[in-house]
Amino acid sequence: MLPYSSSTSALSSKTPSLSSFSTSSSSTTSSDNGSSIASRRGQHAVSLLPTYLADARAVQTYDKDTAPNGALQLGVAESQLVEDLLVPKLNQWAREIPFTADGIYYQPTPGRPGMKLGMAEYMKDLLQLPVLPDTDGIIVGAGCNAVLENLCFALAEPGDTCLIPTPYYAAFEFDLVARAGLNIVPVTTMDYANCDSTDTTSTSSVDEAMYYPTPAALDAAFAKATTPPKVLLLSHPHNPLGICYPPHVIQDCIDWCRSNRVHLISDEIYAGSVYRPEDANFVSALQLASSGGTDDNDDGPLGLGPYIHWVYALSKDFALSGMRVGVAYSENPEIRMPLQKMNDMCQISSHTQMLVQEMMTADADSGEDNKKWTTVFRQAHHDRLRARGDTWQSLLQELEIPHLPAVSGLFCWMDLSEFLEAGDDTEEERERALYLTMVNDFGLLFTPGLSMRNERPGFFRCVFSAATEDEYKLALTRFRTFVQQQRGV
Amino acid sequence: MLPYSSSTSALSSKTPSLSSFSTSSSSTTSSDNGSSIASRRGQHAVSLLPTYLADARAVQTYDKDTAPNGALQLGVAESQLVEDLLVPKLNQWAREIPFTADGIYYQPTPGRPGMKLGMAEYMKDLLQLPVLPDTDGIIVGAGCNAVLENLCFALAEPGDTCLIPTPYYAAFEFDLVARAGLNIVPVTTMDYANCDSTDTTSTSSVDEAMYYPTPAALDAAFAKATTPPKVLLLSHPHNPLGICYPPHVIQDCIDWCRSNRVHLISDEIYAGSVYRPEDANFVSALQLASSGGTDDNDDGPLGLGPYIHWVYALSKDFALSGMRVGVAYSENPEIRMPLQKMNDMCQISSHTQMLVQEMMTADADSGEDNKKWTTVFRQAHHDRLRARGDTWQSLLQELEIPHLPAVSGLFCWMDLSEFLEAGDDTEEERERALYLTMVNDFGLLFTPGLSMRNERPGFFRCVFSAATEDEYKLALTRFRTFVQQQRGV
Repeated sequence: MLPYSSSTSALSSKTPSLSSFSTSSSSTTSSDNGSSIASRRGQHAVSLLPTYLADARAVQTYDKDTAPNGALQLGVAESQLVEDLLVPKLNQWAREIPFTADGIYYQPTPGRPGMKLGMAEYMKDLLQLPVLPDTDGIIVGAGCNAVLENLCFALAEPGDTCLIPTPYYAAFEFDLVARAGLNIVPVTTMDYANCDSTDTTSTSSVDEAMYYPTPAALDAAFAKATTPPKVLLLSHPHNPLGICYPPHVIQDCIDWCRSNRVHLISDEIYAGSVYRPEDANFVSALQLASSGGTDDNDDGPLGLGPYIHWVYALSKDFALSGMRVGVAYSENPEIRMPLQKMNDMCQISSHTQMLVQEMMTADADSGEDNKKWTTVFRQAHHDRLRARGDTWQSLLQELEIPHLPAVSGLFCWMDLSEFLEAGDDTEEERERALYLTMVNDFGLLFTPGLSMRNERPGFFRCVFSAATEDEYKLALTRFRTFVQQQRGV
Repeated sequence: MLPYSSSTSALSSKTPSLSSFSTSSSSTTSSDNGSSIASRRGQHAVSLLPTYLADARAVQTYDKDTAPNGALQLGVAESQLVEDLLVPKLNQWAREIPFTADGIYYQPTPGRPGMKLGMAEYMKDLLQLPVLPDTDGIIVGAGCNAVLENLCFALAEPGDTCLIPTPYYAAFEFDLVARAGLNIVPVTTMDYANCDSTDTTSTSSVDEAMYYPTPAALDAAFAKATTPPKVLLLSHPHNPLGICYPPHVIQDCIDWCRSNRVHLISDEIYAGSVYRPEDANFVSALQLASSGGTDDNDDGPLGLGPYIHWVYALSKDFALSGMRVGVAYSENPEIRMPLQKMNDMCQISSHTQMLVQEMMTADADSGEDNKKWTTVFRQAHHDRLRARGDTWQSLLQELEIPHLPAVSGLFCWMDLSEFLEAGDDTEEERERALYLTMVNDFGLLFTPGLSMRNERPGFFRCVFSAATEDEYKLALTRFRTFVQQQRGV
């Protein structure tokens, strides 16, 4: 095997978890009572973060000159594909837009009116809504995680159940549990207990429909919950699957939630990253749940009723995770004030709101008549995402690696279970061994599926947008080598 | 009486509280179960906000042209005195500083290294620290409330007691209770049960020392707590009193906390607003608790130990509440990771961090040799605060209104209990009646003391920095009229 990581940074399966990292950093004096200088809940919050994140941080990452055998970043869901389009515009706007004097004083907690209106217009365009969303239903806060946590706080009591179809974004467990205190019950769609997990012929591992949260699957999860199910959280377009649920699946979820009085939160943070729209058939839950839009009224509300909610951020579609701009939308009047008040704890700087307002509303440069900058930027991002996604999927097809046909997001969902070592180890241990083999011996840093509560071991998410062009080409080569060596070709 | 507010906006004592506002905004359909479309904890969080805030929002505010009898803003703790110094500089820096490409990607959760270093240098200068604070102990987040909440989460369990000397900033009850779930026990320093509250001769109402959290007062509060006391929260310089605790009082608190294993959080958000330093003798808790600084080492930690913590923000000293820049500092290694992880929910935009880094480190304009911009700005702000504070206190002296000699912050603490109506009403009702009289009949919007858990009714905080110069002059006139009319002069 190739020495892809130096010995000092190579991970062993004995790598401490995040929570033990925390303890080991302790340097309390002997007179201190360890239990009283920090809270248990704080330590527990840290323990909710997936272990693989600590693994990923501990590994030596690739650098052409200093660490040519370091691991390539194929795990963090960021896009590095649009820096050249974005950064010059941000600088231009930052120079052009005045910081107005009102920005130094306390702001409306849900966001500045201009920022909210700009966001409403962007939402109508992006999600193809029949009317402009009601700006009174919009809350902008410091990231999708922040507004999602607030929404959960306003909708459910501590201990209440939140249903999430598997696999799901690993950090949901931190966002929903650490402070909001929800109890996550996974919605599983197939009964693997009665399957031979090594037999992938009877049930294809890469059949998209098997991941759909059907009413039957929702009923089963509802019945399994030991505390009141109050929230169903959907990722749509789906992270980590890279698919969009078909409209009938979302419609079924909307109907199921309304009839069961469960709150649907549609996390549509990848709504502007549907780079194969003709295959994806993405329809926002807001569009499907809307009862408005048949008259001439061009202003919301959408008529969602109290059970349909939406979250979004600029982190993915605009590659702006560092700017911490999240958005929540709800037409439930009972949560408006709690949401606004809690948002006081995660407000976006007035300074950044002014910049984002400009970004949401600016016209495209000349030559792109009558288009918004966001539209032109989105199209360019799609083109680049599609190019990356296509080459990765072509490689998977050539290597006959089962995978879902990715149409959205920054990633592809792969079944690498053929490479799991046989043996008596637990599923977790076997998947982690494979994960560490890929990291340490082949310099490939993917996200392991069990960390996302996938039902079977050996599935991985490959983020194809977080590497530079050279790094990405190297990833293609390394992955081919990995597969061939593992297969003994 | 003068008709200072129009009848439609005049407040009656029947004005609904914030929580009933929330309920009254409900427009749920008849098929909805009201209890299931929002959480009780969300509604409870809203109820923690002081009622007078709703009053203040409901009243018609003064406008020279459109509402010349409207209420003057003397209640919100903001400074409008430095807009001319601040806004042009912010615009200059925003034009000059490039938004670097790294800013679009995920940032270190505690803050960008340059921002933290800039903050450490500013802290050392502002607080006269013996060494530079350890940048690993600095967390920047979206406001003082956000970092304070995180600190409480990391230090104490839900239900644990937080001691706060009275009177205290009313929104602490929201910040510490809504999500962090602490149980606030006021630290009271005098036993009013055995006093005649109308007799102000035996115990002066404006003796600064009576507000000091002495060890005896802390012991009494500790004994009164029904859950474990884990945190003592000090406001230093003090809001709403406008004073600074003498160094020996802070030292006693530090010693008491260390020996009782209680965490001291020193909220020093007004540390840069000590506009009478010769009278204030302000010494930061960080300086007093530091055991470092006697050698040549110019880099932290300060040697605070695990029980001493500090919070700050730019909202007051820099009149930048709209930018949501808060800072926490701690050298407790056990809470470092929880704090960092929770800060993921309230990060400051990279864009704003770049601007603030420049602000913290910029040199003053030419003509102010070898000075930082923050130093020159602070001095100018002090001069303007002192001018306002002096005229207000001169008026109080002339009118023989008992008050604390204000030396810091944006406000003055006044004893207006002589204007309380006698009668069988509760203390709360009598104070609210006086509050509403001043708002509705005299156009004076102060902060009522009982909302800040003051021990006696009839005390008010006058913020003298939130009005324009013309409005402030009008406030002086109106207050004189109020006193004279009430006294029947």
